[in-house]
Amino acid sequence: MIKVGIVGGTGYTGVELLRLLARHPQVELKAITSRKEAGMAVADMFPNLRGRVKLAFSTPEEAGLETCDVVFFATPNGVAMQQTRELLDAGVKVIDLAADFRIKDVAVWEQWYKMDHACPDLVAEAVYGLPEINREQIKGARLIANPGCYPTAVQLGFLPLLEAGVVDSGFLVADAKSGVSGAGRKPETHILFAEAADNFKAYAVAGHRHWPEIKQGLELFAGKPVGFTFVPHLLPQIRGIHATLYARMGTEADLQSLYEERYAGEAFVDVMPAGAHPETRSVRGANVCRIAIHRPQGSDSVVVLSVIDNLVKGAAGQAVQNMNILFDLPEDLALVDIGMLP
Amino acid sequence: MIKVGIVGGTGYTGVELLRLLARHPQVELKAITSRKEAGMAVADMFPNLRGRVKLAFSTPEEAGLETCDVVFFATPNGVAMQQTRELLDAGVKVIDLAADFRIKDVAVWEQWYKMDHACPDLVAEAVYGLPEINREQIKGARLIANPGCYPTAVQLGFLPLLEAGVVDSGFLVADAKSGVSGAGRKPETHILFAEAADNFKAYAVAGHRHWPEIKQGLELFAGKPVGFTFVPHLLPQIRGIHATLYARMGTEADLQSLYEERYAGEAFVDVMPAGAHPETRSVRGANVCRIAIHRPQGSDSVVVLSVIDNLVKGAAGQAVQNMNILFDLPEDLALVDIGMLP
Amino acid sequence: MIKVGIVGGTGYTGVELLRLLARHPQVELKAITSRKEAGMAVADMFPNLRGRVKLAFSTPEEAGLETCDVVFFATPNGVAMQQTRELLDAGVKVIDLAADFRIKDVAVWEQWYKMDHACPDLVAEAVYGLPEINREQIKGARLIANPGCYPTAVQLGFLPLLEAGVVDSGFLVADAKSGVSGAGRKPETHILFAEAADNFKAYAVAGHRHWPEIKQGLELFAGKPVGFTFVPHLLPQIRGIHATLYARMGTEADLQSLYEERYAGEAFVDVMPAGAHPETRSVRGANVCRIAIHRPQGSDSVVVLSVIDNLVKGAAGQAVQNMNILFDLPEDLALVDIGMLP
Amino acid sequence: MIKVGIVGGTGYTGVELLRLLARHPQVELKAITSRKEAGMAVADMFPNLRGRVKLAFSTPEEAGLETCDVVFFATPNGVAMQQTRELLDAGVKVIDLAADFRIKDVAVWEQWYKMDHACPDLVAEAVYGLPEINREQIKGARLIANPGCYPTAVQLGFLPLLEAGVVDSGFLVADAKSGVSGAGRKPETHILFAEAADNFKAYAVAGHRHWPEIKQGLELFAGKPVGFTFVPHLLPQIRGIHATLYARMGTEADLQSLYEERYAGEAFVDVMPAGAHPETRSVRGANVCRIAIHRPQGSDSVVVLSVIDNLVKGAAGQAVQNMNILFDLPEDLALVDIGMLP
Repeated sequence: MIKVGIVGGTGYTGVELLRLLARHPQVELKAITSRKEAGMAVADMFPNLRGRVKLAFSTPEEAGLETCDVVFFATPNGVAMQQTRELLDAGVKVIDLAADFRIKDVAVWEQWYKMDHACPDLVAEAVYGLPEINREQIKGARLIANPGCYPTAVQLGFLPLLEAGVVDSGFLVADAKSGVSGAGRKPETHILFAEAADNFKAYAVAGHRHWPEIKQGLELFAGKPVGFTFVPHLLPQIRGIHATLYARMGTEADLQSLYEERYAGEAFVDVMPAGAHPETRSVRGANVCRIAIHRPQGSDSVVVLSVIDNLVKGAAGQAVQNMNILFDLPEDLALVDIGMLP
Repeated sequence: MIKVGIVGGTGYTGVELLRLLARHPQVELKAITSRKEAGMAVADMFPNLRGRVKLAFSTPEEAGLETCDVVFFATPNGVAMQQTRELLDAGVKVIDLAADFRIKDVAVWEQWYKMDHACPDLVAEAVYGLPEINREQIKGARLIANPGCYPTAVQLGFLPLLEAGVVDSGFLVADAKSGVSGAGRKPETHILFAEAADNFKAYAVAGHRHWPEIKQGLELFAGKPVGFTFVPHLLPQIRGIHATLYARMGTEADLQSLYEERYAGEAFVDVMPAGAHPETRSVRGANVCRIAIHRPQGSDSVVVLSVIDNLVKGAAGQAVQNMNILFDLPEDLALVDIGMLP
Repeated sequence: MIKVGIVGGTGYTGVELLRLLARHPQVELKAITSRKEAGMAVADMFPNLRGRVKLAFSTPEEAGLETCDVVFFATPNGVAMQQTRELLDAGVKVIDLAADFRIKDVAVWEQWYKMDHACPDLVAEAVYGLPEINREQIKGARLIANPGCYPTAVQLGFLPLLEAGVVDSGFLVADAKSGVSGAGRKPETHILFAEAADNFKAYAVAGHRHWPEIKQGLELFAGKPVGFTFVPHLLPQIRGIHATLYARMGTEADLQSLYEERYAGEAFVDVMPAGAHPETRSVRGANVCRIAIHRPQGSDSVVVLSVIDNLVKGAAGQAVQNMNILFDLPEDLALVDIGMLP
Repeated sequence: MIKVGIVGGTGYTGVELLRLLARHPQVELKAITSRKEAGMAVADMFPNLRGRVKLAFSTPEEAGLETCDVVFFATPNGVAMQQTRELLDAGVKVIDLAADFRIKDVAVWEQWYKMDHACPDLVAEAVYGLPEINREQIKGARLIANPGCYPTAVQLGFLPLLEAGVVDSGFLVADAKSGVSGAGRKPETHILFAEAADNFKAYAVAGHRHWPEIKQGLELFAGKPVGFTFVPHLLPQIRGIHATLYARMGTEADLQSLYEERYAGEAFVDVMPAGAHPETRSVRGANVCRIAIHRPQGSDSVVVLSVIDNLVKGAAGQAVQNMNILFDLPEDLALVDIGMLP
């Protein structure tokens, strides 16, 4: 059994980790920390866990994280980088669901996250936990930077196009839409029900923190700098990301085959038939990215549709997938939930 | 392996059965019928099943239902009663998720369902599949009448009060609210998104088909006729039933203990602590009924709050629970999904 | 022109007052206060007002409220009672949309609102602003206590039954459901979109502050103490209250006629035909209470369905209606919006 | 008073026309037709109209449309073209809210709408009713082709860029999202609440009928052929269109000033401050298009955000605006509703 600790379990990625890990046959949940809620049964905060998770929140000091095999950080940005070295030194694997280790260029990270990085050397060591591109490196890693939700949907959507070099990489557009759970569980006015329901808007068009993370990936795939425009929007729904990706064809190619071949054998990327329109609900609660490729109206533009559940393939599910790889378990262990439809 | 057939798989109870059964380790899905969609892969209609359910819809004639161990009817009312005898004669167990076998008084059934019953003798034989009251009879049954969604929530909520005889059974009120999936997947104007969203209303106050079904149960629990008022409402949400039950105390009693004792050992009924307010989302996708009991403002009224997912404990989940009992499997096999929150 | 001031305009009742008053032909908006947002254009906070409301928030000191003809308090409970006397002394009419002057028994008010009342004498003077019962007193009032949202829907629903004395007033039940805007615009976790969407629950069953307000009204209508049970629920929609009211008939009566006669001539109460089911969306944005009366299944129970828009007839609309009465204007001036459907 | 007839009043544009016209001081509603619902009071179908609209549906034969001053067609595509000539001959002005007269190239229209056009000469005569580009022609018109909802939002968003010739017109992208009411009130499975709620998807990526309509406009603005990619999506909300427009700068320009100058004096186009993110709810129920212009991350891409209420500025409101212009009334008469927020 893998002894698991979770730091910061009062947010949505925390409760989603618990939902998935509570049914994982190789996992023993040892501790979940929240200084503020220490002593409270997790199931008192999240009643869906009643009868399934006995754990209570504990303070970080009492949690005994150094005796775990792996620790997940489901914390705000900037927390994991303070505690990771100590855990690694104690032989604990670390999977950070926040952004501390995602961006290799520390100066860029510091600019976008507006703080100094506590351990640039660990940034260099960390493996970006997108299994579809880094599976081998993940296997031997000590520290996994679990990708952001938008970055997962957008990178998986653009990957085959850029690897194959068939589009103009100078003008890539990602029009991305996310359910409100992507904004977290902190009480803020703009994500109140009466503000966000029956409403739709773009936000952070001037610059979103996922932009440099995605750009880093796209440039890696393309092997050169890219021009990348990213516009996130807030959807009046709880879960789900839908990324609509636009590019202009450079070299003609059979895109459907390109995608099917690139993702052959990937359990968690589903290339849909030509002409399909993936729905976010088809992945609600499931660790899957569904993708469809379009060439509308015989033009030179390509449109890729990519959907995930932001809390699963975009966060907790991908983290468990990374854990499975790290511990040499079947990659889909405890990740076979089917999307909840309706 | 239990060979399973499903008749009528194009509705919500059908796809929910597939979601649950596809992960059931003792089930082999043999056939799912839809005359209209014969030949179409189930996953083409319900893309959440892509990669998990290979089955295509078949006509009833081709389905080979008589070679199954159990057949679920996820059909409109009046279909199962036409086909059940033949299946029973072939040694197949039948679980009807519609209403054909729920009401013991055939005349009452015919009045509310506005058709003649095809097999009154089978109504007499059928076991009402509410395991919390009929577990022993279910074990030996050939034919299970799976309870309605409202009836599950309301009966489990009133059961301890009426068995104990502590309330005035002459004036029982169930104010019940259901998500729109309870109305099925047939295209009808009043359940369009633009009609049902951001809106709330009562319906069928003059008389709903679940009224006689619930009344039958309540009178069984009470051992005498009851006065029962039932008002269903349509909630602007996909899944979930919340029944708010009102009664007037007759004999004082410790209601919290009464409920906890009655449901001790029940895996799928969760009596919450005194003062709690169960949320429908805490059971979203889960086969659980959560109940809380209140005595507001020191009055002589008792208020019981009872929530289920109408498609799980109110339909497909309870049907799988019944199947597990029928085939002597652990009652919670493939029913351990945790409510999806958020 | 009536010079109008608004104290506390950053919440939902404030912006709704502005939406209604900006199109009122006899109103001149003079000031809207918010200490925290002083200097900010109202339309910067509420972009629906762009081009229609030029006003900026001002501090209470700069607002010049004492030069207004009427001041609306759209503030948290406990604010109006601190400032009302001074305004009244300056000859300003006051309409409080909060609860400070609604409950005549000051001890009861202090118990439920958990503070000392600043001016019990003004409580005695204040007129409860439900025009359908107090129109004449409103005309001459200086100080109006605008009713709560639930109290408006529940009292208008029960009023004819209790005035006529045809039901058992010892066991009255109001099962009430409100859209999330009823909880205000303060950032709190339980009203986040990702918490409240696709979810339904009861709350405050042990005791809600609107219970004593409603009870006070019902006892006034009945002319004697009543037994009253009130269970509020949170609906996953923005606006709308639906109250489902239950009582047991005492004396038989033609209830449809009773209601139609009681509300004949009332512009803002719509008694629907027998058998109707009012929808909350039919009053979305409109200053109307729609009511339908049912006698289900020939029993001795009566079910009344009553819907309002909590922000209009349940708050800002009713406040404007009261202002129109106070200033001897047509009662429906600027209140003729039709419910927005869909 | 202008005598108004409406053909086809059982859909959402019909009821929205009634909501607006019922409060129009210069309009006398003479008839609303529906063969299927003839005899039924309009307010029985749409209870928000109770007490405000007395009209009943009538058959086209009884309606006396030829005695009206203006007739609105709120019908499926292909109906207006059958009846328009006769009305024009009788001296009646016609405003078609469907697509029959929107596309000047009849062959293109026939290809996309899959029917023969009944009156190509009237297509040539019809004026495309986007007042911001065609105000003068509308004044003298007999026949107005009211623009589609997506075309209104997208054309107003791109107009200043293309008129000024500052972007690469070879690669224009409109990523558009619409609330479900845009799909109409016909019962179809994919727009059921339980299908469309908590869900998001693109649709018709291969080709949507609004693509040629928009392209016609963009080419008119640009004065040359354009490359235009259009991807519509279905939003889980009732009303609202949000178009996110992408282009690549050709010639640098001060875009904020460009837009402010182009739309100076336009009552129904609101150019928001630089950096703003218009929300669909800010125009809910209001006849306004709000636009914001962005240049993200200092790149050569321009992003325009454009929102409307699809039923108001995208349909019924714009139709009333056209009527006001036609009859030389103040353009904003009966169109001053403020967006309903929350």
